[in-house]
Amino acid sequence: MIFDKTKIKNLNIKNPLQLESGKILSEYSIAYETFGELNSKKNNAILVFHALSGDQFVTGTHPITNKEGWWVTAVGPSLAIDTNKYFVICANVLGGCMGSSGPSTIDPTTKEIYGLKFPLVTIKDIVNSQINLLDHFGIDKVLAVIGGSMGGMQALQFCSSYPNRTHSAIPIACTASHSAQNIAFNELARQAIMADPDWSNGDYIKNKKSPEKGLSVARMAGHISYLSEVGLQNKFGRKLQNTKDFKFSFDADFQIESYLKHQGKSFVERFDANTYLYVSRAMDYFDLYRDNNGNLSNAFKNTKIKFCLISFTSDWLYPTSEIKKILIALNSIGADVGFVEIDTNNGHDSFLVHEPEFLKTVRGFLDSAYNKVLHG
Amino acid sequence: MIFDKTKIKNLNIKNPLQLESGKILSEYSIAYETFGELNSKKNNAILVFHALSGDQFVTGTHPITNKEGWWVTAVGPSLAIDTNKYFVICANVLGGCMGSSGPSTIDPTTKEIYGLKFPLVTIKDIVNSQINLLDHFGIDKVLAVIGGSMGGMQALQFCSSYPNRTHSAIPIACTASHSAQNIAFNELARQAIMADPDWSNGDYIKNKKSPEKGLSVARMAGHISYLSEVGLQNKFGRKLQNTKDFKFSFDADFQIESYLKHQGKSFVERFDANTYLYVSRAMDYFDLYRDNNGNLSNAFKNTKIKFCLISFTSDWLYPTSEIKKILIALNSIGADVGFVEIDTNNGHDSFLVHEPEFLKTVRGFLDSAYNKVLHG
Repeated sequence: MIFDKTKIKNLNIKNPLQLESGKILSEYSIAYETFGELNSKKNNAILVFHALSGDQFVTGTHPITNKEGWWVTAVGPSLAIDTNKYFVICANVLGGCMGSSGPSTIDPTTKEIYGLKFPLVTIKDIVNSQINLLDHFGIDKVLAVIGGSMGGMQALQFCSSYPNRTHSAIPIACTASHSAQNIAFNELARQAIMADPDWSNGDYIKNKKSPEKGLSVARMAGHISYLSEVGLQNKFGRKLQNTKDFKFSFDADFQIESYLKHQGKSFVERFDANTYLYVSRAMDYFDLYRDNNGNLSNAFKNTKIKFCLISFTSDWLYPTSEIKKILIALNSIGADVGFVEIDTNNGHDSFLVHEPEFLKTVRGFLDSAYNKVLHG
Repeated sequence: MIFDKTKIKNLNIKNPLQLESGKILSEYSIAYETFGELNSKKNNAILVFHALSGDQFVTGTHPITNKEGWWVTAVGPSLAIDTNKYFVICANVLGGCMGSSGPSTIDPTTKEIYGLKFPLVTIKDIVNSQINLLDHFGIDKVLAVIGGSMGGMQALQFCSSYPNRTHSAIPIACTASHSAQNIAFNELARQAIMADPDWSNGDYIKNKKSPEKGLSVARMAGHISYLSEVGLQNKFGRKLQNTKDFKFSFDADFQIESYLKHQGKSFVERFDANTYLYVSRAMDYFDLYRDNNGNLSNAFKNTKIKFCLISFTSDWLYPTSEIKKILIALNSIGADVGFVEIDTNNGHDSFLVHEPEFLKTVRGFLDSAYNKVLHG
């Protein structure tokens, strides 16, 4: 995946980053984008975290793909995360493929593409790397951190690691640690990528190859887990593709097959296979229980952050029961926490689509947080 | 996959089989196995149908793999399907890879391996091909047809196509048609196989290749869908493999990863990639609604068969709601139908493991059917 790097804003960081693995990134880049204006008091910033397949181009037209940003339903002028009012920052995760240091970027010490020599990173490492952005903008405390899926994990980690750097947090459709089933889906995706001979043990860029088939299968596996059974049934059911009868072949006969193949195919045009490995691994390793000796409450001890937890009824990847564990942990230390379960058939992807009750919740919660910061 | 064909019983059929696709199989082989003895009145036969990854070696030691048969928990002397009492017949499905005609067998007209030249078959074709076995044994009417998953689909199709050739039926953990999510999982598996360059457009045997990586990924996808989220969590959770700490690599760190990789690896030793394509396609095409103008009841009109439908609470591949649709269709024509939902965390695979209430149901239902046939 080659793209015009002049379209990417980069923060180059020379302070070494101590990673959880024990390794050190002596210097690294964080690619980011901002939307809206930072006010003079620098108290209207919202840090958005993206999910596995996302990047910093939250809204508007993506300058590389020329497609819409991944959160155009939520972020923009007069939208729930109102860029007329807030200064929205989003960084491409460390290990990502939209400009931040990762397996497809150049190792400054060897001047070669990292490939699998890029060290494994964790959600904590990712959050630690992004604190530099707040420092860069001179923002002492953001109004809110927000994200869905892996973005929600980063929001939780941020609250745990930097309790004094945000007023509020909206972790959406996420978990405090991956279940065996979550890990299983990610491992399936990784094995699909690594099974592709063009993956070349991670050195496909050097070898001028591209493990597109493997990455495409990985994306298909992901997509199945992002959508609900009922949602898929309502949208596709057993509808046939361009035909009234079965073709009795292995081409796409059913619309759901074409849909999945299309999702796989379009993904490989904009995403890097090694990044899929790194970022999915970071998600699997994320475990706020383990980090706190099994007691999730300890992750948020004495927190003054105001939380709004959001889950979706048909999300079977990170079901409501996972968000409830976080809710219990926060309530059991008397934290200021609200919880909303949105009734929808849109599955895990609900946070990415136009889901009115969800967007209303986000807008209202942010309004209230902003008024509190401005007036008291 | 090469094996000693002398260990396989084959019924060679010269009567052409008209397939649903419109094509004709002019001659074909059905590999089968029997367990127990057929009584003189030939009224103690039970026809067992296997699932996607199964074969005719239901119980005892598999002569090719040297492993246990896939249904040792249910079939054998004094077990629920008691081979001291019943004559159990099981055939390898048409399109299969354990001796029945399929993509890895020789096309009698060209004398070459079929590969993708083998015609696509449906569940109805599979059932039609197996009727020959009953004729071969001179069995006018079996005591029962029984099967789980795709085996349950065959049982349903048998009851619809041959209402006078069985007294009773036990369709287990199955559906009358695949949902979009079911098709999605199968398509994911097929794409994983076809993405493997060693698949060689289906001609891997001729080309002396084996698409093991693709088939292994396909099997992993299947396995995820066969197990319940709770079952996986109870068995594996986030337990690590041979280590107290994360290895920060892409090797298997979690036990669930090793388990899936092992399942994939051992599968390729005993299964054929093209058969996976054919048989999964047959499942996707199966649609007793479509075959009956949308009215499932019509599939069983005037049936005298006694049904026992069985589902499992944690089966999310073919949830209880699917079996209930069949239950409603049968009740709405006054058919003789019982229904049991077994409470278990073992997911779709529940019918393959030692599940006491399930096995008790099967044993009791068969006992009752047998007594009725013997005495009245």
